Amino acid sequence: MQQSNTTTLSTVTGLMSQIAETGRDTLRGGYTRPVYSHAEIELRQWFIEQAQSRGLSVEQDGNGALWAWWDLPTGDRTDAVVTGSHLDSVPGGGPFDGPLGVASALTALDMLKSRVQERTRALAIVVFPEEEGSRFGVACLGTRMMTGAISLEKALNLRDQDGTTFADVARSNGLDTRLMGPDPTRLAHIGAFVELHVEQGLGLGELDHPVAIGGSILGHGRWRLSVTGQGNHAGTTLMAGRRDPMVAAAQMVVAIRNIAREQPHARATVGRIEPVPGGTNVIASAVNFWLDVRHPDDAITAALIQRIHDTALDLAASEGCELSLNQESLSPTVTFDATLTSRLQGPLTNAPVLDTGAGHDAGVLAAHVPSAMIFVRNPSGISHSPEEYVEDADAEIGAAALADALAGMLN
Amino acid sequence: MQQSNTTTLSTVTGLMSQIAETGRDTLRGGYTRPVYSHAEIELRQWFIEQAQSRGLSVEQDGNGALWAWWDLPTGDRTDAVVTGSHLDSVPGGGPFDGPLGVASALTALDMLKSRVQERTRALAIVVFPEEEGSRFGVACLGTRMMTGAISLEKALNLRDQDGTTFADVARSNGLDTRLMGPDPTRLAHIGAFVELHVEQGLGLGELDHPVAIGGSILGHGRWRLSVTGQGNHAGTTLMAGRRDPMVAAAQMVVAIRNIAREQPHARATVGRIEPVPGGTNVIASAVNFWLDVRHPDDAITAALIQRIHDTALDLAASEGCELSLNQESLSPTVTFDATLTSRLQGPLTNAPVLDTGAGHDAGVLAAHVPSAMIFVRNPSGISHSPEEYVEDADAEIGAAALADALAGMLN
Repeated sequence: MQQSNTTTLSTVTGLMSQIAETGRDTLRGGYTRPVYSHAEIELRQWFIEQAQSRGLSVEQDGNGALWAWWDLPTGDRTDAVVTGSHLDSVPGGGPFDGPLGVASALTALDMLKSRVQERTRALAIVVFPEEEGSRFGVACLGTRMMTGAISLEKALNLRDQDGTTFADVARSNGLDTRLMGPDPTRLAHIGAFVELHVEQGLGLGELDHPVAIGGSILGHGRWRLSVTGQGNHAGTTLMAGRRDPMVAAAQMVVAIRNIAREQPHARATVGRIEPVPGGTNVIASAVNFWLDVRHPDDAITAALIQRIHDTALDLAASEGCELSLNQESLSPTVTFDATLTSRLQGPLTNAPVLDTGAGHDAGVLAAHVPSAMIFVRNPSGISHSPEEYVEDADAEIGAAALADALAGMLN
Repeated sequence: MQQSNTTTLSTVTGLMSQIAETGRDTLRGGYTRPVYSHAEIELRQWFIEQAQSRGLSVEQDGNGALWAWWDLPTGDRTDAVVTGSHLDSVPGGGPFDGPLGVASALTALDMLKSRVQERTRALAIVVFPEEEGSRFGVACLGTRMMTGAISLEKALNLRDQDGTTFADVARSNGLDTRLMGPDPTRLAHIGAFVELHVEQGLGLGELDHPVAIGGSILGHGRWRLSVTGQGNHAGTTLMAGRRDPMVAAAQMVVAIRNIAREQPHARATVGRIEPVPGGTNVIASAVNFWLDVRHPDDAITAALIQRIHDTALDLAASEGCELSLNQESLSPTVTFDATLTSRLQGPLTNAPVLDTGAGHDAGVLAAHVPSAMIFVRNPSGISHSPEEYVEDADAEIGAAALADALAGMLN
């Protein structure tokens, strides 16, 4: 390697390549990095090392978020400018959802250090845990806990697919459950939050532009439906005598799609279904499945859920089954801070403002602190899939845009 | 405990109580004892100890079946009388499916030892591995391998849900894959095979009789259906642009039930479904599900599968998805050996002859050696479920019936 006295600035693609082998999913393709898995812990360690090598002061808060501080000489952290994202992924997800925001924040920091002479606000890069909710079922769990959007008791009792509680997982990762939950002091120190994220649709692809500013996040929620029937032997039980929750659940999946299709701008998805016991030669005794519904109008989301619930109850009854529907999370439609967004439009000339159907920690924080988002073009429009993609050049443009946006906020 | 000089005969309920805590499934209820799991290995060890304590000579054959021999003084094992069953279970299964046949065989042996003075045939109690197919997807894998009903290559390449091959699992359990596969010598030594099993329907309950003789086993098979679409983000992908394999698979599940309901005596079940990647906020890229179909007329089974395949292809196409259907196993309808069955009717006076929709190792062996079955009453008619049930008194009557049947065959 060539020795040099000039400081080498990092690139987003260079940072991303350092973690390209962590948490690869050979079965599904892409990456599986659930919160507190071996892979996600390795990514956290990588982030800590990257932050420390830049002279940042790293701390983990009570809820397991990592904060890397570029402090003022005075040490004053009030009214801080905060950027960052998450490192966990959905099962079989793409490389960019989350890590792009973290790598771009580190790269933007390198740029800012070389060009910002004076500033009045501290800057922090944050990594939030369990943004996807792919392990414990509640998306943006880190920010929901910090803001109190979920009660500590409910959060600690969440269980992963193995039946392990979040409390146990948190404890075995060194967290003290007595120090978890709402953190109003920390929240009050955030003067502004800007999250850079890969776009999860075709908006920028169609506009032929590399970056956009976030306008709003569709209201969204998750519901768990449990259909119970009569478990029995697949060979000895006549068709006529069956109360098969799989047949009832299948009818519900189709009905949900049809109901959503009739409602403009609605999205409804069943991506996870788990029959109990799940044997090939066994009529299931129960089927659990999860419903994700999103709509810009929160009243329409509520009406959709009501209609789905009514329809599902009828379908369960017609198969001799029982149904329960439980809300696991609900986030109203969020419009990002108008002042902050218009401040971003200064440096990010020509950047379009795009709404999104995807939830983000910035959406949870927006109810408490001025928040904004920057999206980076994804030519496939595909996300939560190994096919998620960002051009190298766009990734660097994104980091430069983030640096521009933050530079204007440090004084 | 009271000391006594008389030999204490075992009871079926006594033996069953010794294994009542092994492999309990606290999540699903009942028992989960997949082949070569910790629980099933513990049960094998229990069987070996029980057999050795009775002076039987225990060996494991090349395919992992356990054989406990009550040898003749000459050591001649040709034309042997064989009884037994299996110790593995479906996920969340009942206590009797499999172990009842093993415990009854041990109890019947105790009775025979005290009452048979002279005999000309050796007797063996056998425990076959992977009868349920709940780990590697092929039911009666042990007898299919021994008889060559499945090729060694195909068997060794079967994978469990973790992606581990049967070859790897067999090796790590001490089997030599070079010694696995068809075993015509061992097969030729079986003069007759009698399997006692809990009934998996309401036949005996309705007839108010404790035991029945098996008449025939419904032809049955398993097929794996894979539906592939376009994985994507649940929030950002409009309903109109979706190619969602979950919606297509759900329509197939409903169609399969409807097709089976129109065909008298047919049973078709989907008890296992696995979306890929299986995230709540992810439109699946693929959905795999397993189909179990049974009918007494093998031609009708074939026609049903053809009709299901055609319908599923149409449904996949209408959702912009692709479909593949692969047969994992197929067993024609089996009628048990008429001579052996009529010999059983001598000692088992009044026992009705019942057909069954459930597959058994006796059904696989029936194509090669004279085979018969004895069923024990299950008042609930429920099986493959924690609710599977046998009265204590019926369990002892079953073992006595097995002893009577075997006694008449030992000369």
